[in-house]
Amino acid sequence: MSTTRSTAAGKVLKVLSTFDREHQTQTLSEIAQRTDLPMSTAHRVVMELAGWGAIERGDDGSWHVGLRLWEIASGCPQTQILRDVALPFMQDLYEGTHENIQLAVREGTELVFVERIAGHRSVELLTMVGSRFPIGSTGMGRVLLAHAPRHIQDAVLDAPLRSWTPHTVTDPKTLRGQLVRIRREQVFVSDRQLSESTVAVAAAVRIGRTGPVTAALGIVIAAGNASRARGLREPALRAAFAISDELGRRAKTTG
Amino acid sequence: MSTTRSTAAGKVLKVLSTFDREHQTQTLSEIAQRTDLPMSTAHRVVMELAGWGAIERGDDGSWHVGLRLWEIASGCPQTQILRDVALPFMQDLYEGTHENIQLAVREGTELVFVERIAGHRSVELLTMVGSRFPIGSTGMGRVLLAHAPRHIQDAVLDAPLRSWTPHTVTDPKTLRGQLVRIRREQVFVSDRQLSESTVAVAAAVRIGRTGPVTAALGIVIAAGNASRARGLREPALRAAFAISDELGRRAKTTG
Repeated sequence: MSTTRSTAAGKVLKVLSTFDREHQTQTLSEIAQRTDLPMSTAHRVVMELAGWGAIERGDDGSWHVGLRLWEIASGCPQTQILRDVALPFMQDLYEGTHENIQLAVREGTELVFVERIAGHRSVELLTMVGSRFPIGSTGMGRVLLAHAPRHIQDAVLDAPLRSWTPHTVTDPKTLRGQLVRIRREQVFVSDRQLSESTVAVAAAVRIGRTGPVTAALGIVIAAGNASRARGLREPALRAAFAISDELGRRAKTTG
Repeated sequence: MSTTRSTAAGKVLKVLSTFDREHQTQTLSEIAQRTDLPMSTAHRVVMELAGWGAIERGDDGSWHVGLRLWEIASGCPQTQILRDVALPFMQDLYEGTHENIQLAVREGTELVFVERIAGHRSVELLTMVGSRFPIGSTGMGRVLLAHAPRHIQDAVLDAPLRSWTPHTVTDPKTLRGQLVRIRREQVFVSDRQLSESTVAVAAAVRIGRTGPVTAALGIVIAAGNASRARGLREPALRAAFAISDELGRRAKTTG
């Protein structure tokens, strides 16, 4: 009895899980196939989710995440508080650069982009809000990795590192040295590590100036202008400090 | 059997529903109370949701929406495509004004804020991303109402309209006249309708210049400067047109 119940709830979550970054729109048979559920079961679960508004049907009959689920999920404090605090400072950085300004958090050995500001002139990126990347692959990821617990660092460095471009550092020893430098200098210029066309300038965001690292802030510009990237180290660091200070103040007020 | 399963899935959605704007952090007993589920059942569902990452436990033992659910939900196309297209134009408006720039969509007789840009100097607002308001109460809402199907307009205008400030228009006849004017002038200055301290300048966003209205764009400034508000009609309208054009181009490409 308990198993049946638990299974039914599990199926709901299983169906929801299929709506990931690569499958934002799916037909019923795709959902059935990807969950390994019989069509009739998948249909029933889909209808229940639709009845609640978690998913909606497009004009072509396929399914996507609905506004109701988005509303509930937008209350996620990890993204909401960060976003509220960081956004004005990210706006300042944007106005000063007109580049992509990004904010990401770590989940295990991956990073998740929780906010992005971009204008007409900002360089096109592989990343987007809500997307995940291996933490070792991006400049912001390496900042998060540099401040991650030892077992996370070991998990990343003991596994083969993916080479995204000919410039990607994949040697664990070189990467370990980079992490030491990131912790010392507090800001990091990541040159064409994820894409041939971009350079990221990333800094750690803490809760208070000396508290735990909770996010990474990054400015992403077109590759090929090394002195410009270097010049953005100072503004990136200043903004990260300002966000950290404000997060620290809020933590004190509510804690 | 089918009922049991359906009930179990329903319970999952019931528990998720409790995490609304006013209850972003809840203890297990609050969840049990608000869902009307026995503590043991609420506990089981909470544990299943937590196991999947839909909800997470804070340091104080209470529950909140987790990053995993936020990630899945951030794939909601209604908010994602709009956001992608609108953001650069919203940035331009922000740089020109340093005020709150907002984007909202209609759901039934309510509006949901899907994006907000705000700086250090922007006026404090009642609204926030993911929050809902009755469509008749805000400037952006009235723009959406002006372009809503007849049965939605009737539902809003036949019900008593809430008076948020002494200035809120609550007379259905006056409001109907306002809706006609909004459709004609395409941009609307909403003076202290939701709060004594704010004025909104709102315009409709369409899919293409003459397509269906899909969102409302708004600039919200501090009350007390009528000529400034009037001066923002033109930039708001221009930005709304630019977003509409781009949405129209995308609809053609993918449709």
